[in-house]
Amino acid sequence: MDYEQHGAVSAVSSVRLDDERSELVVLDQTVLPNETVYLRLKELSEFRDAIYHLKVRGAPAIGIAAAYGVYLSAKASAAATYDELYADFRKAKAYLASSRPTAVNLFWALDRMESRFVREAGKSPAEVKAALKEEAEAIRAEDERVCKSIGEHALTLLAPGMGLLTHCNAGTVATAKYGTALAPIYLGQERGYRFRVYADETRPLLQGARLTAWELQQAGVDVTLICDNMASIVMKEGRVQAVLVGCDRVAANGDTANKIGTSGVAILARHYGIPFYVHAPLSTIDLGCRTGDDIHIELRPDEEVTTKWYEKPMAPQGVKVYNPAFDVTDHSLITAIVTENGIAYPPYTDSLPQMFRSRG
Amino acid sequence: MDYEQHGAVSAVSSVRLDDERSELVVLDQTVLPNETVYLRLKELSEFRDAIYHLKVRGAPAIGIAAAYGVYLSAKASAAATYDELYADFRKAKAYLASSRPTAVNLFWALDRMESRFVREAGKSPAEVKAALKEEAEAIRAEDERVCKSIGEHALTLLAPGMGLLTHCNAGTVATAKYGTALAPIYLGQERGYRFRVYADETRPLLQGARLTAWELQQAGVDVTLICDNMASIVMKEGRVQAVLVGCDRVAANGDTANKIGTSGVAILARHYGIPFYVHAPLSTIDLGCRTGDDIHIELRPDEEVTTKWYEKPMAPQGVKVYNPAFDVTDHSLITAIVTENGIAYPPYTDSLPQMFRSRG
Repeated sequence: MDYEQHGAVSAVSSVRLDDERSELVVLDQTVLPNETVYLRLKELSEFRDAIYHLKVRGAPAIGIAAAYGVYLSAKASAAATYDELYADFRKAKAYLASSRPTAVNLFWALDRMESRFVREAGKSPAEVKAALKEEAEAIRAEDERVCKSIGEHALTLLAPGMGLLTHCNAGTVATAKYGTALAPIYLGQERGYRFRVYADETRPLLQGARLTAWELQQAGVDVTLICDNMASIVMKEGRVQAVLVGCDRVAANGDTANKIGTSGVAILARHYGIPFYVHAPLSTIDLGCRTGDDIHIELRPDEEVTTKWYEKPMAPQGVKVYNPAFDVTDHSLITAIVTENGIAYPPYTDSLPQMFRSRG
Repeated sequence: MDYEQHGAVSAVSSVRLDDERSELVVLDQTVLPNETVYLRLKELSEFRDAIYHLKVRGAPAIGIAAAYGVYLSAKASAAATYDELYADFRKAKAYLASSRPTAVNLFWALDRMESRFVREAGKSPAEVKAALKEEAEAIRAEDERVCKSIGEHALTLLAPGMGLLTHCNAGTVATAKYGTALAPIYLGQERGYRFRVYADETRPLLQGARLTAWELQQAGVDVTLICDNMASIVMKEGRVQAVLVGCDRVAANGDTANKIGTSGVAILARHYGIPFYVHAPLSTIDLGCRTGDDIHIELRPDEEVTTKWYEKPMAPQGVKVYNPAFDVTDHSLITAIVTENGIAYPPYTDSLPQMFRSRG
């Protein structure tokens, strides 16, 4: 891994292939907002590390990075036959799949890359490598289109001047472009909607403060940073007319895994009568997963809560910590799920499959 | 101000008068849990600074410190007559009253000191000073009795082995002893109740992580630290059977101002069917305040959210921040309010005045 430093951030690009150097250039989300650093990932271990340590984060961005990761790994392979290359590919895929357990896009993107591999059966390693590159590029390009489409649909639910609250980061840096939850905000910004956005800082890793506040500020959006526990007062004071969040996995019944704290925001929104919208590319909807009970929740290290970012430890030594990275928002709390193919309303067991049928 | 360093913290004492040196010895709550430092407050400006900068915090502890502050200020006065001393006292009182706007105990304690002053009308300055000392000492001693009594009443609402969640710090360091919300936990600990306590870290100033987790750990209580936004998942997973919080001011209808985020926890508790108990010394119940709408909410500096404690800023430069220090929990979300004179249940407009009548 080496580093590229950029002063300007007007053209934020979370993921870009540098095929000539066989490297993926990714924005390091762990050092924002103080530094804008682009990492160059080459070895598979660098991809896994970047995903595990959240340098690349956001369900769509993880999927895109993983797709490029298995492509670049295949490209570097000295395999002489299709079968040899496939064996290498399978190893690389399993290795990257182990980097984070909750976001389904990771598995979705890796499975899609494997399907493409299998479709090229019998071809030469060089031909397969070219196909894998094409597939990874397609995943990236599609994500951009998908997010824009989600933004267009979501915008129909919103009105100019609204106050919007978002949790964590489901923005440009989490995707190829536009984001999911933030897509309607960017589109609205271009069209003079003048939204007022409240960004939950999102402990423990502060994706809201470091990423959402930063990228919205870059785009000139009116954004106000709050601590997670201020969402209630902000809603009570009438500052928020809709809550917009992304997601890491949506089950068939609409139960939605997203950043820890999302379920709490949904409960507050319900209490105050504010609509709560989940923004979900079809790639994050897992119809094979019946309910949220089937979603494995990643537990992360205590240090993220007690010491990370701080000058000194902010909790007594040896204290027990519980640090789940995600929670599941019950489908009953979700007003609508916005996909690239339209808006799904309850009951989700009926409406979500329809979103897939209306595809293409 | 100078500093005393202590290694042992087994005998935590938040406030202690050193009358010989005309100083109040207070535990500096801003450097916990890394250091146990006792400050010596002498000048009135030091008292105001200690309260404003949260070195002394917690509604009861603020009241006690302010009472000692006006006593020591009077003691240092060169006034030759009762009237001159009273003029000095009034200035000192107004100055300390301006240090924080939300906690009613501050005004309650200062008013009580003034009432005592007035009762000593016509006496010599030396006699008045002795009376003020007596009154401040009485406020301190009463707080200890009051907290213990709150703990006994609260314990009747709890059962051994329960999981309890608390927000912010309403413990030993926030009072003369025992705390308010934590009082039943300490009493239960002595009696083998084996509570499992979840402490919200309580952004932005982390009183839960730095103070609650620390003082419960010192006492050998089973405590687990969580981020504020994890309260929902912890409740959903069935880990919590009751929520216990302190308060800064309770209005006549039961609306309760407490640390920012408390109202959100109350809404979550309601959603999950978990009882939500407010622990309130009568000195924090303000029957002259009709509803929570009449409670002034203190706004604090942006830096508490964006940079405080961190090695580097955790939000983009110049971002807007909203940082209210308190919120108001609607009376409809509160299962019961536990006072030193018993437990008040809804409707609070009836039950709270009864708590005062049953006094003494």
